[in-house]
Amino acid sequence: MATVLQSDLQTVMTRIGQDARAAAGSLALAPAAQKNEALLAGAAIFRRAVDSILEANAKDMAAATQRGLTGAMLDRLALDANRVDAMARGLEAIADQPDPVGSEIARWQRPNGLDIARIRVPLGVIGIIYESRPNVTADAGALCLKAGNAAILRCGSESFHSSHAILDVLQTGLSEAGLPNAAIQLVPTIDRAAVGMMLTMADSIDVIVPRGGRSLIERVQQESRVPVLAHLDGLCHVYVDKAADHSKAREITFNAKMRRTGICGAAETLIVDRSIAASVLPGLVDDLIEAGCELRGDEDVQALDSRVMAATDTDWTTEYLDAILSIKLVDSLDAAIDHINMYGSHHTDSIITDDDVAAERFLAEVDSAIVMHNASTQFADGGEFGMGAEIGISTGRLHARGPVGAEQLTSFKYLVRGRGQIRPA
Amino acid sequence: MATVLQSDLQTVMTRIGQDARAAAGSLALAPAAQKNEALLAGAAIFRRAVDSILEANAKDMAAATQRGLTGAMLDRLALDANRVDAMARGLEAIADQPDPVGSEIARWQRPNGLDIARIRVPLGVIGIIYESRPNVTADAGALCLKAGNAAILRCGSESFHSSHAILDVLQTGLSEAGLPNAAIQLVPTIDRAAVGMMLTMADSIDVIVPRGGRSLIERVQQESRVPVLAHLDGLCHVYVDKAADHSKAREITFNAKMRRTGICGAAETLIVDRSIAASVLPGLVDDLIEAGCELRGDEDVQALDSRVMAATDTDWTTEYLDAILSIKLVDSLDAAIDHINMYGSHHTDSIITDDDVAAERFLAEVDSAIVMHNASTQFADGGEFGMGAEIGISTGRLHARGPVGAEQLTSFKYLVRGRGQIRPA
Repeated sequence: MATVLQSDLQTVMTRIGQDARAAAGSLALAPAAQKNEALLAGAAIFRRAVDSILEANAKDMAAATQRGLTGAMLDRLALDANRVDAMARGLEAIADQPDPVGSEIARWQRPNGLDIARIRVPLGVIGIIYESRPNVTADAGALCLKAGNAAILRCGSESFHSSHAILDVLQTGLSEAGLPNAAIQLVPTIDRAAVGMMLTMADSIDVIVPRGGRSLIERVQQESRVPVLAHLDGLCHVYVDKAADHSKAREITFNAKMRRTGICGAAETLIVDRSIAASVLPGLVDDLIEAGCELRGDEDVQALDSRVMAATDTDWTTEYLDAILSIKLVDSLDAAIDHINMYGSHHTDSIITDDDVAAERFLAEVDSAIVMHNASTQFADGGEFGMGAEIGISTGRLHARGPVGAEQLTSFKYLVRGRGQIRPA
Repeated sequence: MATVLQSDLQTVMTRIGQDARAAAGSLALAPAAQKNEALLAGAAIFRRAVDSILEANAKDMAAATQRGLTGAMLDRLALDANRVDAMARGLEAIADQPDPVGSEIARWQRPNGLDIARIRVPLGVIGIIYESRPNVTADAGALCLKAGNAAILRCGSESFHSSHAILDVLQTGLSEAGLPNAAIQLVPTIDRAAVGMMLTMADSIDVIVPRGGRSLIERVQQESRVPVLAHLDGLCHVYVDKAADHSKAREITFNAKMRRTGICGAAETLIVDRSIAASVLPGLVDDLIEAGCELRGDEDVQALDSRVMAATDTDWTTEYLDAILSIKLVDSLDAAIDHINMYGSHHTDSIITDDDVAAERFLAEVDSAIVMHNASTQFADGGEFGMGAEIGISTGRLHARGPVGAEQLTSFKYLVRGRGQIRPA
C-alpha cells in the first residue's frame, strides 16, 4: 500500500490538484471521438486485465476479512469476472451516450444584432469521495471523462488495491487515446486527512460528489468549502389513491419495496386512502409478509390486519434500506401530499391512481426530485432514465436534482458574437 | 429603527425562515398571472408612494451623512423620484418576462413506455444579503417572486429605512394579489449576527445570493453552510487580434473601459497583438488619456507611448473598477488566451478580430462565463442579454454562470408518467 508521510500529504494533494486542473484544460477541448476512444480502449483492457484486477481484489478481500467485515460489506467489495465485465460494459455504454460538451442549450438574437449562444462546457475538476465499492472508480472516472472533466477519486481504504488496479486500466485507456493520465487520478493514500484537504481545495476542485453512508455525506456537507452534489436520504413513498387500480397498487408497491430494499429508490412508506384500505390492503399485505417484509402501521392499519406492528413517529422519517415498510391511512389526496412534503426526503414519490386529475395534482404539488404516476419508485436511476450511467442521485435543488449523468456534470458559457457593437450610455 | 434583543434574534430568524418556507409552498403553485398581478400592483403603488419612500430615504441619508459617508456611497444610497420610478418600471419589466415555472425543459419516452418530463420548479427560499443600494430590495424581491421563490432580504444598515419603505410597497402588492406577505421579508434588524444566522439556515434557505464588496462575498463563501450563488471579481479583458479592424478595436476598447468604470463588465486589461500594436495603439491611447484614463503597460507598450506608466505583476490581477487600464503585448492568439485563463476571473472577455477562425478559437478556449467577439464587455448584463433583470452575475460554475435572471433562480423536477410499470430484477 502506498504510504505517504503526513507532512508530505499536503504537497501530494496540491500536486494532484494542479495536475487535475491542467488535465481539465486539455479535456475541455478534447473532441468527443477522443474521449470515447479512451473509454473503449479502457473497456478492452478491462477484459484483458481480469486476472490482475481479481488478484488486487483478493488482497483487499483478505484484509477486509481479517478486519472482520460482514457479509454485505464484503459483497460490495468483492469482484469476479462478471463484475469486471460489467465495468467494461459500463465504459462502452458511456462511450455510446451523446457527448454533452459543446451542445447548444439556447441561442437568440438581441435587437442590437448581438447573437448570444449558451453552450455546455465541462464543470472542470470533480472530486469523488466514496466508500468500499471498487466499481465506482470505473463508473465515476468514466462519467467525468465523458463530460470533459478531470476526476480526483478518493476510494475507501477497503478497496485500495482494487481501485488502483482499475485506475491502471483507465489510465492506459487515456494514454492510448492521447489524453493525459491526470484526467483520472486516485488519491494515493488511505489517510483520512486527504478527505479534509479535498474539501478545502476550492482552487483546484470545482465540485465534490460524496458517495457513501450518511456520516460521510454529512461530514462533507458540513466541512466542504467546495460546492457539493450530494445524495442524502431516499425516503420514498407510494400513495395508493382512492381511484387506484387494485392490481397495479399491489404490484407496484411490492416492486417499489422489495425488488431491492437497499437502494435509495426503494419505498419506505406506503400511504393508502382510507376509503379503499379494506379492499386493497389485504392482498398487498399478504404479498409483503410472504416475502419477509416487516410492516409497521398506524392504528387504523393495525385494526385492518393484526400482522402489522405498531409504527411510532420515527417510522415516518426513517429510511430503512431493509425489508421494512411503514403504512399510513389518509382521508384525502391533500393529506397524502402534506405527509410526503413534510416527512419525505424530496427524492422519489409515486401515486397509484386511475384519476388523471389527482395524478396531475400529485405530480405538481409533491416537491420531490422525481414524482411518478403508476410506476415503481425503483425506476429512480440514471440508467432507467436513459442517461446511460449516473454518478449518484442528487437530493439538493441547485445545479442537479435527481440522477446525475454526464449532462449534469457540465456547466455552460455564453458566446456573444457581434460586429462592433458598443453599449450605449 | 426596529431593535431586536440579541437573545431574541435567533427566534426571530427562525420564525422568518419558517414563514418563508410556508410562503414558498404557496408561491410554487401560484399561477403566473397572480405573481404578475402582485408585481404590477407593486409598480402602481411605487408611483403613489414616492413621497413616503423619499421621506424614509431622507432619514437614511441624514444618518449616513452624519456618519461621514463619501460621495459615491451617498449616491448609491440616494433615492429621488426618478429612481423610485425606475423601481416601478423594473417590476413592470419583470412582470412582462415569460414565467419560467412549469416550463418543460425536456421530455422523452423510455422503451418500457415510461414518459419522463423535466420541468422547471422554483428553487424555494432565497436569501439575499446586500449592501447599501436600496433598489436591490425591489429588484431582488421581484425577481425571486417571478421565479416562484420566497425571498429573505438582509439590507445594509445604511438603507434600513428606505428598504423597509420599499418592502411595504412590495408586500401591499402581494396582498392585493392574494399572495402571502412572507413571500418577501426583510430581516428587521441591522445586527450583523443576523447574517451569520442566515448562512447556517440550511433547513429554511435553499440558496444565498450575496451582493456587495469583496469582503462580504468572501465572508459568505467562507461561512455559508447554504449553497451560494456569488459574483466575485470581474477582471475582464479586451484582446485586439492581429486581424482586428482598427476602428472597432478603438471604439470597443474605449466603451469597454470608460462607459462605466465601476461595473463588473468594465475591461481592466487590454491585450494587443504585437504585430499591430504600433498602428492600433496610438489612437486608442489618445482616446483613453483624453478621457482621463490612467494607462499601465508592459515595457513594450511603454516603449510605444511614453504616456503609459509601468505595470507591475499585480496589475494583471487587479480589478480597478476605476479609470485605469493595464495593457500588454502578446505574440499570438495562444498567448492571449493563456494570459486570460491564467490572470482573468472567468467573467467576460472579448476578442476584436475580422478573422473568424481566430474568433471561434477564442470563444472556445477562453474559459469564461461570457466570451465575446467584436463586442464591448459592458454588454455583460442580464438586461442586455434579454433576461429582463438580473440578481447578479455569477462567477461560479455550478447551477448558474453569468447573469442570474428568473430562469437561473429555478430548479427542476422529473415527472414520470406510467401505466403500471414495475422495474425488472
